[in-house]
Amino acid sequence: MKVPKIIRPTLIVDKNKAVKNIQRMMLKISQSPGRIRFRPHFKTHQSARIGEWFRELGITAITVSSVDMASYFAQNGWNDITIAILANPLEIESINQLAGTVDLNLLVDSAEMAGFLNLNLNQTVNVWIEIDTGDHRTGIEWDQKNEILSTTIEIKKLPKLRFKGLLTHSGHSYKVKSPAELIGIYDDTVTKMDTIREYLNEKGIPGVEISIGDTPTCSAVEQFYGINEVRCGNFVFYDLMQLALGTCKEEDIAVAVACPVIGCYPRRNQIVIYGGAIHLSKESMTHENGEKIFGLAALPNLDSHGWGPTVKDTYLSNLTQEHGIIKTFAEFCRQVNVGDILMILPVHSCLTANLMKDQFYIKG
Amino acid sequence: MKVPKIIRPTLIVDKNKAVKNIQRMMLKISQSPGRIRFRPHFKTHQSARIGEWFRELGITAITVSSVDMASYFAQNGWNDITIAILANPLEIESINQLAGTVDLNLLVDSAEMAGFLNLNLNQTVNVWIEIDTGDHRTGIEWDQKNEILSTTIEIKKLPKLRFKGLLTHSGHSYKVKSPAELIGIYDDTVTKMDTIREYLNEKGIPGVEISIGDTPTCSAVEQFYGINEVRCGNFVFYDLMQLALGTCKEEDIAVAVACPVIGCYPRRNQIVIYGGAIHLSKESMTHENGEKIFGLAALPNLDSHGWGPTVKDTYLSNLTQEHGIIKTFAEFCRQVNVGDILMILPVHSCLTANLMKDQFYIKG
Repeated sequence: MKVPKIIRPTLIVDKNKAVKNIQRMMLKISQSPGRIRFRPHFKTHQSARIGEWFRELGITAITVSSVDMASYFAQNGWNDITIAILANPLEIESINQLAGTVDLNLLVDSAEMAGFLNLNLNQTVNVWIEIDTGDHRTGIEWDQKNEILSTTIEIKKLPKLRFKGLLTHSGHSYKVKSPAELIGIYDDTVTKMDTIREYLNEKGIPGVEISIGDTPTCSAVEQFYGINEVRCGNFVFYDLMQLALGTCKEEDIAVAVACPVIGCYPRRNQIVIYGGAIHLSKESMTHENGEKIFGLAALPNLDSHGWGPTVKDTYLSNLTQEHGIIKTFAEFCRQVNVGDILMILPVHSCLTANLMKDQFYIKG
Repeated sequence: MKVPKIIRPTLIVDKNKAVKNIQRMMLKISQSPGRIRFRPHFKTHQSARIGEWFRELGITAITVSSVDMASYFAQNGWNDITIAILANPLEIESINQLAGTVDLNLLVDSAEMAGFLNLNLNQTVNVWIEIDTGDHRTGIEWDQKNEILSTTIEIKKLPKLRFKGLLTHSGHSYKVKSPAELIGIYDDTVTKMDTIREYLNEKGIPGVEISIGDTPTCSAVEQFYGINEVRCGNFVFYDLMQLALGTCKEEDIAVAVACPVIGCYPRRNQIVIYGGAIHLSKESMTHENGEKIFGLAALPNLDSHGWGPTVKDTYLSNLTQEHGIIKTFAEFCRQVNVGDILMILPVHSCLTANLMKDQFYIKG
């Protein structure tokens, strides 16, 4: 099949790489002790078509990050969905519609919200208590045992709510520097969650499930233990942030944005691409060279829309709305021409994929 | 008219403020010496409906930042359009379609691209040479007189190209700290552009037009001089970045994202909203308090979807895909409840408006 010609910024999704990433995570889960449910987060790709790759491998339960996203995947045949953001009381009408069609899991971190849901839901839903194990975004702090207990007791009293367990997102894993530290965060997360599970058990609430989710720790551990559910999402694509954390290899990164070169400036070793903040997002990171970067460049394989290794000493140093500024070295600068395509590996694939929802091509 | 209930992140555009911003810029242009064309940049709002506010005030020429955006506004009745990004040879087919329906202005910064256009265009188009006056993004460096001259001579030889003049975007204006410095950049830009105009005049090329564009300098100067065209765009909405530059007042900011509160954490003086990187963009800035911020919060006026002044000592300290983390003080934290709406003033309104294209409400 002839591949379509790229003429403007286009997200290329390498299906083989993505499927390998899914298979690798599934294998790890299946080889871990106990029965662990894999409920991958679909916020990374937000695509029914990519969702099918998971379904073909046997996945039946998914995670999303908004009611809208849940509705979209429900319409595409998914019927066991966790909305992994605290329930928003203002969306109760849409939540009720969803709860009537799928097996819905909601998050709360207060007895008040549990009470609100019970009062306003038309259907029974599953409820998880979100626990803060160190990320300090949302959730009851893990050491507030009495609050967790009283919230659990309250939920178990409410007829419209089916208490499932404790859920956490260890997002602080994005701030560390090595796989060894990530394994430390995993161990710490499991220890904290298990402390609560034990406490609830002592208080007469057995069988509490534990759900965890972030891609960095899930990628770093050799085996899972101490949990019932894994919700990571970014691993399907990975990105430069994960590469820097050591949780993937460069060849595992399954997305790149194909960008036309519109300017070449050998006098300052600079290339400018059509591809900016509205294509890649303004997520940045500190590169190993000490510079703030917004992406790395690779040469395309124009026959297949694949790409080669990232070009050394070459990085996106700034983005404006539609322009990307690439700093490079003389030889590469001379080699590239206006009208060429460069492949940009994103810093954060979830945000890039969100921006490119309407402009992507699946390779393979 | 009853306003619709906000239930999820929604961009609110305050029409009165936006129209006042447009009128203020138009007044300044009309009061400046000479005849200056106003060609506002529509990349900021990307909305045909908002475009009508400009049309009602007499605007007939516009700027956009992509061929797609040009096609969209062409379909909405705009027929004098500048695509203010270097012509992308890969989009020649769409450019030809456009050139057949509207008065099209393209940018080049090389004789090669001018030659390519002449060879591949079916229609005559207007062409500007992009000049780099210090931003170092795209354009021929202003002091490369011979290159500018030879490119001009080449363009004037080509039958499909109608040479218009010299165009620059002084984007380095975003890096300064005060209106006085911005006026300095304006003066510097005009001096550099005028040097080239004079040089071309000496070489027998009279009547070269000069087009400038960035919102910071256009807002800072009391009067325009030495130019023929103004292309700024952000001024219609302004944002926190402009506020920090001193180019607008807080009450001029015409957009805010209404976000539901989903978590309150008085133990750490934190509020969490449903409203994250996919709503606001990850553009950040250093606030006057020294912190990196992603937005400021204001209380809504729920009757009208307006908003009050920004809340002191309260700012968006981090964004994940769907969550916004607000740092605040004890009293405000106690005052806000889950289910409330907070209004977030964005750091960079162009990127926020781009993300919220499908989820906005016009107030007034």
